[in-house]
Amino acid sequence: MNPTLEIFSQGEEIVTGQTVDTNAAWLSQEAIHCGFTVTRHTAVGDKLQDLINLLLDISKRADCCICTGGLGPTSDDLTAEAVAQAFNRSLEFDEIAFEQIKAFFVRRNRVMPEVNRKQAMLPQTATRIDNAWGTAPGFSLKHQRCWFVFLPGVPSEMKPLFLDHVKPDLLTRFTLQPPQLVTLKTIGLGESAIQELIKNIQIPVDVELGFRAGTEDVQTKLLFRFDYPKLALTALVSEFSQSLGDYIFAIDGLGEVTDDLAFEVDKLMTAKNQTLAVVETASYGLLAAKCVGYDWLVKASYEQALVESTQALNPTELLDTAKRLAREVQENPRVTMVLVQLYSGGQAALRDKNQSLGVLSVLLIGEMFYETHHEVVGSMKRKQNQAALLTLDLLRRHLQNRLIKTNHCI
Amino acid sequence: MNPTLEIFSQGEEIVTGQTVDTNAAWLSQEAIHCGFTVTRHTAVGDKLQDLINLLLDISKRADCCICTGGLGPTSDDLTAEAVAQAFNRSLEFDEIAFEQIKAFFVRRNRVMPEVNRKQAMLPQTATRIDNAWGTAPGFSLKHQRCWFVFLPGVPSEMKPLFLDHVKPDLLTRFTLQPPQLVTLKTIGLGESAIQELIKNIQIPVDVELGFRAGTEDVQTKLLFRFDYPKLALTALVSEFSQSLGDYIFAIDGLGEVTDDLAFEVDKLMTAKNQTLAVVETASYGLLAAKCVGYDWLVKASYEQALVESTQALNPTELLDTAKRLAREVQENPRVTMVLVQLYSGGQAALRDKNQSLGVLSVLLIGEMFYETHHEVVGSMKRKQNQAALLTLDLLRRHLQNRLIKTNHCI
Repeated sequence: MNPTLEIFSQGEEIVTGQTVDTNAAWLSQEAIHCGFTVTRHTAVGDKLQDLINLLLDISKRADCCICTGGLGPTSDDLTAEAVAQAFNRSLEFDEIAFEQIKAFFVRRNRVMPEVNRKQAMLPQTATRIDNAWGTAPGFSLKHQRCWFVFLPGVPSEMKPLFLDHVKPDLLTRFTLQPPQLVTLKTIGLGESAIQELIKNIQIPVDVELGFRAGTEDVQTKLLFRFDYPKLALTALVSEFSQSLGDYIFAIDGLGEVTDDLAFEVDKLMTAKNQTLAVVETASYGLLAAKCVGYDWLVKASYEQALVESTQALNPTELLDTAKRLAREVQENPRVTMVLVQLYSGGQAALRDKNQSLGVLSVLLIGEMFYETHHEVVGSMKRKQNQAALLTLDLLRRHLQNRLIKTNHCI
Repeated sequence: MNPTLEIFSQGEEIVTGQTVDTNAAWLSQEAIHCGFTVTRHTAVGDKLQDLINLLLDISKRADCCICTGGLGPTSDDLTAEAVAQAFNRSLEFDEIAFEQIKAFFVRRNRVMPEVNRKQAMLPQTATRIDNAWGTAPGFSLKHQRCWFVFLPGVPSEMKPLFLDHVKPDLLTRFTLQPPQLVTLKTIGLGESAIQELIKNIQIPVDVELGFRAGTEDVQTKLLFRFDYPKLALTALVSEFSQSLGDYIFAIDGLGEVTDDLAFEVDKLMTAKNQTLAVVETASYGLLAAKCVGYDWLVKASYEQALVESTQALNPTELLDTAKRLAREVQENPRVTMVLVQLYSGGQAALRDKNQSLGVLSVLLIGEMFYETHHEVVGSMKRKQNQAALLTLDLLRRHLQNRLIKTNHCI
């Protein structure tokens, strides 16, 4: 039996629906990968008594609980107070936490507001979790059968705190048998298209198949028992890998560190010592934005005039224009590769959620042109994002020697 | 006192984090706009006893509960069974529900699988909620103090069922007084800085103050009773508005439609018939990406060489370079306004999460230059996003006649 874990989210913004609680889903997946069974999520607002009741209930029924939110400096941040009252402990001033909070403001050349002092008050006997990403330290403690971990609700602080501090601690504190998770990351296939491609694969009953369609990729997840034989695991992954083919840009869980598409492109661009210039249209700068921090991106531009002058072109003319543009950009001596993205139909086609958008991507390397065509559909922001990914994916396909001609509706 | 409402989501895909529970947030907002106070969200998986316990708990503490999920035809869809056991009622075959389920399959030219018969079994005395969007009918019933509403978990079925059937029913069943919500949207101030600025405002006890720090803005929210006097409401909002000053880019809830920063800029750029060219560095195309679909954005570019050539400049040299660049871009006859963003320290300063980034934004209109300096901190992606927003915000400030010289750490 795995130990049980509950997720507890605190904040009026969650119960009032102002914020969708993505922390709960993220933490649940992490907890399951550690080897916990997640039994319940609960969100409550800023009523002290509600928090106290919930903490007491959870302390009786779960082995572990991860709580997010309510650690801020303001009067509606009540988590520490609720813990103190529920578990009958006093709040104590933590000198080291206070120094860290002050240092956070010093690094930003700001005076610490008096309200932030409150964040250094921790329940008696709690273990502090240092927060290098924000002002609120987390903390953890045991009450009854349950090990409680309290983290800030801001995802950009919560996630690194969990990964760097909480997870390693949980793995030693509990006897866990983490399942083996393999994730195939694809771009260019929807969930039902993936289902079709893999429908003939025999999946053993003790392997769990799941999907996650996010903004950056679609993930096909295979969850294996902790002691699932390595050989059988590899064989099944390889079947999936063959079925999904060159749509896969990365496979996570087989030892290599993976991340998003730009991260995979970065590995290869750096290894091959290449540089890139980009001309964007439908993605409006978003392709470049996805490459933030990578210095192989030499140049990126968006021009409204280009959208207008190409809006009525037929496919051949559009391709010729893209090629001509790519050659012009290639004249920059710092550039070894050029990506040009064009679309037809003008801005009306981009804005109208009921109209699909034909996106042409052209890659120029030396004297060689490569191209893909995609129809992207959905809201304007979805089309923008898909266009950014699909144009960048043409470069990934080249770098991985997985170039194909696609003409596919996304 | 508003009646209280809880949200109850059923499904393994929710507790395991495979699916982010967007239903809970959507239903909460709807419920609050109806005049309920939402007190809690709970998600549990497919364990019958967990469902029974939760239903009993909720029946004692809430006036209303909206439950989603668990109404499907398969063995892990246990909601009706849990209701029957928890509230001691038998399950009864509902002839009309069965006819509707059969008709659903007939319309799709399919034979109804035998498992779907289960969906016509409803708890004794429950009121059926006809579902024209799928096979599972919803139902509602009262137990103890609580009015329970059970809906399918698929958002495309749940939402129309709620809006067409549940909401009108709730509005007659409860005495509801929808509150008035005013949201002040700011860029350039953190939550604690906002707290400092408003600390001297006397907030009446019956007005609820809340904050929401998102990636696109920081929101200060004032929730007023349904019958709060308009004059007093306006007076309080105006006090907040004066305290937060030109950091406010939009106020929602006073009649005008608002959205994100680019939306506000769009209103003004369109009204004033202006066009814009942008040179980005730290934001790597993200400023342009935020303006997707707006055709006043004539041109946007990112150049790595610019980051390199400016990395060792002192503030005066950086400003001179930005101005010279802005003049060059201004030569384009289609452009009436130019934004240039530069930063010092080079890409190392952008990448290192422990290093702050000094971002200079310059706006050129005709012969006039305007500038802001900001120190942005945090992860690389946070710095990128803040840089995009703060540079665009300089334009917003000009368009709203709210230009100031800022030298502020964000």
